[in-house]
Amino acid sequence: MMQKIGVAVLGATGTVGQKVVALLAQDPHFYVAELTGSASREGKPYGSTIDWRDDLSFPEEVRTLICKSPLDIESPYIISALPADEALKIEPMLAQKGHIVVSNASAFRMDPKVPLLVPEINAHHLDLLYSQETQGKLITNPNCVVAIASLGLAPFLKLGSIKHIHMVTLQAASGAGYPGVPSLDLLGNTIPYIAGEEDKIPQELRKIFGDPIHPMDLKVSVQVNRVPVRHGHMASIQLTYEKAVHVEEALEVLQDSSYKNIIKVHKDPTRPQAALDLKPNEMRVHIGRVSQGEDAHILRFVVLGHNLVRGAAGAAIENLRAYLSFIND
Amino acid sequence: MMQKIGVAVLGATGTVGQKVVALLAQDPHFYVAELTGSASREGKPYGSTIDWRDDLSFPEEVRTLICKSPLDIESPYIISALPADEALKIEPMLAQKGHIVVSNASAFRMDPKVPLLVPEINAHHLDLLYSQETQGKLITNPNCVVAIASLGLAPFLKLGSIKHIHMVTLQAASGAGYPGVPSLDLLGNTIPYIAGEEDKIPQELRKIFGDPIHPMDLKVSVQVNRVPVRHGHMASIQLTYEKAVHVEEALEVLQDSSYKNIIKVHKDPTRPQAALDLKPNEMRVHIGRVSQGEDAHILRFVVLGHNLVRGAAGAAIENLRAYLSFIND
Amino acid sequence: MMQKIGVAVLGATGTVGQKVVALLAQDPHFYVAELTGSASREGKPYGSTIDWRDDLSFPEEVRTLICKSPLDIESPYIISALPADEALKIEPMLAQKGHIVVSNASAFRMDPKVPLLVPEINAHHLDLLYSQETQGKLITNPNCVVAIASLGLAPFLKLGSIKHIHMVTLQAASGAGYPGVPSLDLLGNTIPYIAGEEDKIPQELRKIFGDPIHPMDLKVSVQVNRVPVRHGHMASIQLTYEKAVHVEEALEVLQDSSYKNIIKVHKDPTRPQAALDLKPNEMRVHIGRVSQGEDAHILRFVVLGHNLVRGAAGAAIENLRAYLSFIND
Amino acid sequence: MMQKIGVAVLGATGTVGQKVVALLAQDPHFYVAELTGSASREGKPYGSTIDWRDDLSFPEEVRTLICKSPLDIESPYIISALPADEALKIEPMLAQKGHIVVSNASAFRMDPKVPLLVPEINAHHLDLLYSQETQGKLITNPNCVVAIASLGLAPFLKLGSIKHIHMVTLQAASGAGYPGVPSLDLLGNTIPYIAGEEDKIPQELRKIFGDPIHPMDLKVSVQVNRVPVRHGHMASIQLTYEKAVHVEEALEVLQDSSYKNIIKVHKDPTRPQAALDLKPNEMRVHIGRVSQGEDAHILRFVVLGHNLVRGAAGAAIENLRAYLSFIND
Repeated sequence: MMQKIGVAVLGATGTVGQKVVALLAQDPHFYVAELTGSASREGKPYGSTIDWRDDLSFPEEVRTLICKSPLDIESPYIISALPADEALKIEPMLAQKGHIVVSNASAFRMDPKVPLLVPEINAHHLDLLYSQETQGKLITNPNCVVAIASLGLAPFLKLGSIKHIHMVTLQAASGAGYPGVPSLDLLGNTIPYIAGEEDKIPQELRKIFGDPIHPMDLKVSVQVNRVPVRHGHMASIQLTYEKAVHVEEALEVLQDSSYKNIIKVHKDPTRPQAALDLKPNEMRVHIGRVSQGEDAHILRFVVLGHNLVRGAAGAAIENLRAYLSFIND
Repeated sequence: MMQKIGVAVLGATGTVGQKVVALLAQDPHFYVAELTGSASREGKPYGSTIDWRDDLSFPEEVRTLICKSPLDIESPYIISALPADEALKIEPMLAQKGHIVVSNASAFRMDPKVPLLVPEINAHHLDLLYSQETQGKLITNPNCVVAIASLGLAPFLKLGSIKHIHMVTLQAASGAGYPGVPSLDLLGNTIPYIAGEEDKIPQELRKIFGDPIHPMDLKVSVQVNRVPVRHGHMASIQLTYEKAVHVEEALEVLQDSSYKNIIKVHKDPTRPQAALDLKPNEMRVHIGRVSQGEDAHILRFVVLGHNLVRGAAGAAIENLRAYLSFIND
Repeated sequence: MMQKIGVAVLGATGTVGQKVVALLAQDPHFYVAELTGSASREGKPYGSTIDWRDDLSFPEEVRTLICKSPLDIESPYIISALPADEALKIEPMLAQKGHIVVSNASAFRMDPKVPLLVPEINAHHLDLLYSQETQGKLITNPNCVVAIASLGLAPFLKLGSIKHIHMVTLQAASGAGYPGVPSLDLLGNTIPYIAGEEDKIPQELRKIFGDPIHPMDLKVSVQVNRVPVRHGHMASIQLTYEKAVHVEEALEVLQDSSYKNIIKVHKDPTRPQAALDLKPNEMRVHIGRVSQGEDAHILRFVVLGHNLVRGAAGAAIENLRAYLSFIND
Repeated sequence: MMQKIGVAVLGATGTVGQKVVALLAQDPHFYVAELTGSASREGKPYGSTIDWRDDLSFPEEVRTLICKSPLDIESPYIISALPADEALKIEPMLAQKGHIVVSNASAFRMDPKVPLLVPEINAHHLDLLYSQETQGKLITNPNCVVAIASLGLAPFLKLGSIKHIHMVTLQAASGAGYPGVPSLDLLGNTIPYIAGEEDKIPQELRKIFGDPIHPMDLKVSVQVNRVPVRHGHMASIQLTYEKAVHVEEALEVLQDSSYKNIIKVHKDPTRPQAALDLKPNEMRVHIGRVSQGEDAHILRFVVLGHNLVRGAAGAAIENLRAYLSFIND
């Protein structure tokens, strides 16, 4: 049996950080070797300082790990769930020191030398790492909605050239972390706004689907909503193609074996639903409602994924796996 | 002071029917003269048979009104909140008998002789009544989402020729009536499906904005969602114009005095919100998030309205008011 | 027609403060003459600084009122919706300066010289004001749960001597103000804890029902819960009497005309419910489920009230009314 | 390794039935050998007829099992998740035919010959089976609240003689099955009523804690609430003892090793919470907020359990395990 690889988790006490810790504890290849929390937690055992809120059980093996300072990390492989402002400072220093930093933070997502990696889509973007001058390397995963939507979009992009993508999101509370959104904002209410989100999504999609340096020429227009759901970002997506397309073509591409473990396609018209389709370690994105409406150039679908798993913690872990596969090839 | 006009309310014990009764009790022109419930309620006082659930207070003046059979109604003016199947049978009989039937039911909305009336948009469709052979007349209001979205769209349609409308809805629980949607379907969950809705919306919009007989040539593609909100249908709408347009143009048209009492425009980017903007008798639609994104041919906005008021009961009452104005001109 | 009395509102931008402003705008006796917000708002018009979130409409007449510093208030009558720590400092200073300060804050509720006033229960506690040495006076209303529960308990206390009161509360999100409780704590969840609440409630009840100086000898045990409801505190209450009692006795006392405008008694076993029974200006408490179970010495009931109205803002306004009536007698 | 025992599941398509199927698929001792659904499903594969809604994954091994008629069941061991009216007819027929019927239905819970079994509390009640004249036997588990509350109460009953138990419940939506409670009743709302529940709970508790024939002399008074939570029944419980008791005594008894796998005691005052403490196969009950208030004779605590697991499906499975252990002794 293969020996597991130790990973350091930065920002391990936050909402995403807890999910990273929980998923690594279930992972066949990795284990949590070191971790960091906020400065006030340094030197304390993780188990005594953490307010564990993840839906997955607290992994007993990390209880006595001592929270370190980020710059004291020794593990070569790091998953960063730091806030963007801390990531901006700390991640380059760690790459400088020789670490492989796989980050969920937004700080370097649009940096032209940093892969915005969804390995099932653009594993070749790892070639960008050769352009990074540091001994270590920095890899990022997209914004949580983009991580989910990009996987949903990938098969549809194969059907033909796209004139326009219209996307409306329904995003869960945990996307804003904890404490995050006040309950009076979400009890029986939806909010048609998340700061910065509508601008970020098109940019990140173009980088993911494009050539590493040259973003794809993809017109995307996004409207976002926060909805009273704990976990699970959903997007209602409408694609306008240059040519006429058919629902059957889409369903056929979706059946491709390469999507087998990534995408779950629902025939039940009432699916996907966060309450029914998202286990607390669900890495698949769920696609449903593939339809055409009245215009033969348009395909519509709904995509749903777990924002903390596929949209953040699980995405980062997959990126580390992809990196190891890349350097071992 | 003007004498109030008595109105008969059909289906007065349902979710929409209760709202009709509550709104008529506040109306400066109308009062509830007669009402009907389900067959089992006939002959009983409304106040003793009703499970009053509306957010507006029960109007004491209707407590002792006796629930009638629809065909015993004597009032010339009728507002129908009947289920579609009952409306299909009963409304034509009442029109035959000479009543003015203003219906919220879906049964005759697409009938070419029946106005699908949003008086602020298409009051001239009342001319269709001349084509109805019956002594009485039949007028309908649109589906609840369409009633709200059409008012939101009206000013935007003035900005130029539209190539395509993309719309994604977030619809409240009360749109399905009571008991309606099971709580396990909506607690912390959203459902990307409402039976028939995605087909109905484009058809009704084309009839409303078109010539009475010839629907407007309007390409509309809709994806719907049910969300855990009590009242209030929201739609995220993206309009693709033939020419370049500007947010400022839209905001200017929205300031037009003709929209003053119909549309409330929000500058706060977090609005509109059902929890903050919808009083239980709110007839205005609320527009926010007017934006452009990256494509000069696209305008986006969010529209929110009270599905039971502007989307149903209030819409029917306005239609009766519009009819009376029409025949008195 | 009586001339309305101007009132200054302290803390007018918070959740309770907004409700005070909204209710005063509807009040037959009072109007908002002055108001204060946080220090950063001083000198700015209330309408431009406020994020209005109350379910009642923003009263246009206060839009241009300038937010003052508390110590610049000139109105003789003040309603304070200050946080406890600010109230502790400022309210005595204002009383010293001669103002009548009617406070919703917790700072002085248990002060033996300050009436903890529910005028429908203990108006005679206003005699305590003679013991205050300041030129002005300080009056408080109870904690929001106590304000509601005390009115529910009052008729039951008339039925006989009570050995013990067991109370379990279900308290709404708005009781914690805004932003208050994080949405991840309340979406599909309840929390069996509110800091300090279980100790405060018995003490306040004993002061309210006792002699001004000597609290009533009332054994009360309380367990609290926060529930995912926007507004409305409910309490399930069980009273153990010294003697056998009957549900009919309780229902008879509840019919007493003195409770007519204060208590609404529900026969429907599924009531009261926040969603059905609490209008945004609802001053009545709602009682339902009066029952006995298996023990003739026990009576049980459920009481519900609007925590921001009867439990806070409305309570303070009634206390000011009671004071004016007291000094005019 | 022990060979797994096949179990037939009656009513396997309902909310509780699905949980039985899901838990059996994880069980070290049992597997699903046969199953029944509603009459219309007979003859069809379970996997094609089921609308799987459980939080645990659909177990692939039952996909092709054919839904049978209850009277065609051949397995000696049956777990029944039938509705009460069907259970009343079918369960005795199956016991007559020689099956061991372990039922979650309410039909025979109070039958003096049928154990109302919580094996951790009253395993000796299985002696009642000798009084059943049938070749097969019938065993029941309590109502979902009682199953949870009884385990929470068990340690507290050891501290001394109890004068009275006051209990207020906060019960989840799934306790009413699917479709169950309408969403308009639970979105942002609580309901202080569940038909029949307040009477059942005291009776069942007395039978569980008593001698099989003679119920315990236990005074219990219950008030129930339905709350907007998907899964998880919570109870706020107050015990009045004959003598003075201390929180420390309770905490000591709760540490008893016999409760180790049954009860999780929380020190965090904000726990237990359904959102944080209930995994979809959680068999433990969670106790928190152990406190005394002002009266030395009273202890208070909060107990939470998964109503579909510990309160229903898991309880029945444990009862089958207890039966097998009983006959093998």
